[in-house]
Amino acid sequence: MKYSKVKDLLAGTLVNTEVGVRGWVRTFRNNQFIALNDGSTINNIQCVVDFENTDETTLKRITTGAALQLHGTLVESQGAGQKFEVQVTRLEILGDSDAEKFPMQPKKHSLEFLRENAHLRVRTNAFGAIMRVRSALAFAIHQYFREKGFVYVHTPVITGADAEGAGEMFQVTSLNLDQIPRKEDGTINYKEDFFGKHTNLTVSGQLEAETYAMALGQVYTFGPTFRAENSNTSRHLAEFWMIEPEVAFNDLHDNMDLAEDFIRYVIKYTLDHCEDDIAFLESRLLDEEKSKPQAERSEMKLREKLNFVLENNFKRVSYTEAIDILKNSKPNKNKKFAYVIEEWGADLQSEHERYLVEKHFKSPVILFDYPANIKAFYMRLNEDGKTVRAMDILFPGIGEIVGGSQREERYEVLVEKMEKLGIDQEELWWYLDTRRFGSAIHSGFGLGFERLVLFVTGMSNIRDVIPFPRTPQNAEF
Amino acid sequence: MKYSKVKDLLAGTLVNTEVGVRGWVRTFRNNQFIALNDGSTINNIQCVVDFENTDETTLKRITTGAALQLHGTLVESQGAGQKFEVQVTRLEILGDSDAEKFPMQPKKHSLEFLRENAHLRVRTNAFGAIMRVRSALAFAIHQYFREKGFVYVHTPVITGADAEGAGEMFQVTSLNLDQIPRKEDGTINYKEDFFGKHTNLTVSGQLEAETYAMALGQVYTFGPTFRAENSNTSRHLAEFWMIEPEVAFNDLHDNMDLAEDFIRYVIKYTLDHCEDDIAFLESRLLDEEKSKPQAERSEMKLREKLNFVLENNFKRVSYTEAIDILKNSKPNKNKKFAYVIEEWGADLQSEHERYLVEKHFKSPVILFDYPANIKAFYMRLNEDGKTVRAMDILFPGIGEIVGGSQREERYEVLVEKMEKLGIDQEELWWYLDTRRFGSAIHSGFGLGFERLVLFVTGMSNIRDVIPFPRTPQNAEF
Repeated sequence: MKYSKVKDLLAGTLVNTEVGVRGWVRTFRNNQFIALNDGSTINNIQCVVDFENTDETTLKRITTGAALQLHGTLVESQGAGQKFEVQVTRLEILGDSDAEKFPMQPKKHSLEFLRENAHLRVRTNAFGAIMRVRSALAFAIHQYFREKGFVYVHTPVITGADAEGAGEMFQVTSLNLDQIPRKEDGTINYKEDFFGKHTNLTVSGQLEAETYAMALGQVYTFGPTFRAENSNTSRHLAEFWMIEPEVAFNDLHDNMDLAEDFIRYVIKYTLDHCEDDIAFLESRLLDEEKSKPQAERSEMKLREKLNFVLENNFKRVSYTEAIDILKNSKPNKNKKFAYVIEEWGADLQSEHERYLVEKHFKSPVILFDYPANIKAFYMRLNEDGKTVRAMDILFPGIGEIVGGSQREERYEVLVEKMEKLGIDQEELWWYLDTRRFGSAIHSGFGLGFERLVLFVTGMSNIRDVIPFPRTPQNAEF
Repeated sequence: MKYSKVKDLLAGTLVNTEVGVRGWVRTFRNNQFIALNDGSTINNIQCVVDFENTDETTLKRITTGAALQLHGTLVESQGAGQKFEVQVTRLEILGDSDAEKFPMQPKKHSLEFLRENAHLRVRTNAFGAIMRVRSALAFAIHQYFREKGFVYVHTPVITGADAEGAGEMFQVTSLNLDQIPRKEDGTINYKEDFFGKHTNLTVSGQLEAETYAMALGQVYTFGPTFRAENSNTSRHLAEFWMIEPEVAFNDLHDNMDLAEDFIRYVIKYTLDHCEDDIAFLESRLLDEEKSKPQAERSEMKLREKLNFVLENNFKRVSYTEAIDILKNSKPNKNKKFAYVIEEWGADLQSEHERYLVEKHFKSPVILFDYPANIKAFYMRLNEDGKTVRAMDILFPGIGEIVGGSQREERYEVLVEKMEKLGIDQEELWWYLDTRRFGSAIHSGFGLGFERLVLFVTGMSNIRDVIPFPRTPQNAEF
């Protein structure tokens, strides 16, 4: 007997044939109607039990969460709410689910409770939808780059470099912390560690990806990255996935074009391939926002917001223009910003970014040409000598979703900058080699995958868009 | 001016038009013929310089490794060796490459030398080909599972679990190793570590993937995994990528079918999409093997070997049958095996696996139904009470490429096994929950990505099929 997926049964092509289906009970009504789900779609298939000819013990075991194997006939449903249903002829309980103990009851659970049950929350409608959307987005990312001729590069997770400079790092070691080997001067003898030196978890694959871009032309990474920062916010994870394309011969404007085109492609793919899931997530968000005051609710419904991104170019605004807008803004004049913008050179805080994106432009914004001294060492210095070819893409409700730049391709300028910032040239000898041999302009960016998933699913806490979140004081599961 | 990729120029559709191209010099012959590569293909485009009208200084800067930007006319080539070439009208040196210093000279380098220059080796034909093939394989993997309706799951890299049991683990910490906080009893106070407990790098995402399979039905992981094992061999890495599908309702034979179908699909995809790269790697392998004695050379050329896998079912052999074959084999009788097979229950060593695959069956082999006590705690116990539904897929020249099993779905049997092996049930409470609520049979496997890349590229050292290998005493770049 071949078993069908719920998704295929709901498509109806097997109507009036004998079918088999396996899945988990979502609800069981009137001792007769099983709503069965197998994860292939957010929708359940109604399975109608001939309760008069089914023994009482079996009926009692049809509880929320139980795993069933059913045989029967797929028929057009007479009832409201579904087009097709299975008239069950044979029913087998594969695995019970004690109704008293199963944590995922058929009722509304708080997101916090669901986080504590991250191994089971994916059995709910919302988390099934989120994780299918996440998977579709990941596939769309690979397909986009493959169609464009990019090579996918796995840059290392364990790195000997301390200089990547994107944030605090976790240490990786095989040393026994109860018996740390020491050198004569008392310092730790990393020669005895697995890699023979001090190693960390990567904060970015960019520097390695650059070496590949200077050979293969167009490359991208898509892998886990890490920050040991004690940021207990709804937008930060200690472990998250990042996409980092890097393209030889691209300047900063090519880089912006790529980022926009890329983001549109993956959102479009997901809208096209996850219709039911996104429709559900849209209604979930509407429900959630009902409890909020009007002013805090989203101006657009989820699909409106996604289509807005597809149909409107991102606003491209230089840092200098942004500072002017902010200086003259009401919240700045009224000192409503926690950090009042006084002059050019100020680092933008999340409150400023939100103002620009959500109040002023009401659109995704690309800020570019930042002051050199608030950006990383590898960014291309502009001819003005004080700004660098950096860009950040800011999204409504999310904040920074992309950070990128044209890279400094000039060996002497790069070395001078590293010296100024005290970055070890010996450690990055291989990075400098890309500027020694056949250097060329090139650009790239990093996109935080979970922030993209947040945007597309309309969820508001980043812990709800990754299967098992890692945050300060939490590495459960 | 739009610039074309070398791959597109070689396709010839732009013949007799003005084109622009950017890339790196592979060779420069007769002060006239540049072989230019941009990574889009293994093939170079010949660019013919009008040397009589180009100044001497510029001509001198056209050296191996230099980055160039060229304009000219794409024409049919009169010379042998290429169909199309660019008659250069304008030439710009973007980045010089000092011929005396550039490590990647246009000559044969040892693989060891290239490993020491992993940031530059991708500028060679062989490593460009390997990395394009690797990327194509990765895409094929995602496409296969997407077409089959699997959900891609990112399982965590940092794990609080010690019990995964697949090997030695790296510790992840944010503690300052010079000032380790201690409790009153002198033990390390992990409450002060980032996650509030002792954490490691994952050795497998299987246990987490199982929780997702029991909701979404069919899932897979594809991410980095880690082993802190001091294995300095040509088949081991401390950091490698693994693919782990997990499918609800699949038994061991469904699992074997999935693995075979999957491996064939991705190999077929790569043969279809990386023709030039694989042709090059085949000839590279033939060259390499010329220096070996006849007996050590491959019996099949690379593409023959790949097609053999496409066209022949893998041999399915129970462990018990395999022991019989080995006991009666010549090397066993003549005590040529380092570990002579005496009786049922022996753990198979690499020499035994190689004998079965390379000498006896001359085919990929799936060994299944292993003795319970040489396999992991989560594997489904057979009715004989002594074997488990495990399977290993062995490939010629590679050894174990897949390890998988049907999982023990019975709560009581699983708990008993964990007790017997001293595996902490409190730590794995969430794993046990999958057997408490709606349990069902399910199966999965892990495929080591780099071993697959080894097989498809015909390379023999695993350090040559990952961009920046991590091995004992080596975390450079």
